[in-house]
Amino acid sequence: MSKYGMNVKFTAKAGERDALAQILLGAAAAAEGFEGCEKYIISLSETEPDAVWVTEIWSGEEAHQASLNNEAGKALIQQARPLIAGVESYPVRPIGGKGL
Amino acid sequence: MSKYGMNVKFTAKAGERDALAQILLGAAAAAEGFEGCEKYIISLSETEPDAVWVTEIWSGEEAHQASLNNEAGKALIQQARPLIAGVESYPVRPIGGKGL
Repeated sequence: MSKYGMNVKFTAKAGERDALAQILLGAAAAAEGFEGCEKYIISLSETEPDAVWVTEIWSGEEAHQASLNNEAGKALIQQARPLIAGVESYPVRPIGGKGL
Repeated sequence: MSKYGMNVKFTAKAGERDALAQILLGAAAAAEGFEGCEKYIISLSETEPDAVWVTEIWSGEEAHQASLNNEAGKALIQQARPLIAGVESYPVRPIGGKGL
C-alpha cells in the first residue's frame, strides 16, 4: 500500500496567521494519537505573510480518510474556519527520500 | 536557530516525470550525507501528471546554502535541468508538528 501525502497551503485572513498556526499546531498535537499519521508538520511561509503550510504524510489514504471523522479534528477545523481566506491542497504520493 | 524548509514543485516536460523523480531520488540519497539536511522527501502529484514535489527540511538556512555548493548536488541539477519545464519554490519556516 503506498503512502498518502498532502501539501496544504492555508492563507489566513489578514493578521490571523499566528492564530491559525496555533490551531494547526493543536491539530498536529491531536495527530500524535492517529497511528496512521506519520507526519503533520506546520510551517510558516517565508514569502507570503498570510500563508501557513501543512505537510501531511499518512500510511495510506484510508488512514487520512479515517482522521476526517475524528471529533477533535472536526472541532479544530470549525475553530480554524473563520480565520481562513483560502486553502490550496496538493495531494501527493510520497515515493522515497531522506526522512520519509 | 530556526529550521529552514522548502516545498518545491517541479513540473517535468511531458513524459519525463518518472525520469525526473529518479534523479530527485538520487539527490535524496546524496542528502543522506548532508548533516544539516533533516528531510528530503520525493512525492508524485496525485492531480498533476507531470508534477513532482520535494519537501526539504534543513537544520538552518546555512546548511541549505552549503548544500548548493556540493559537487554531487550540482551534477544532479545539471542532469535534471533538461527534463524540467517549470519550478515553483515555496520557502518555509517549520515551527512544529508531528514528525518534524
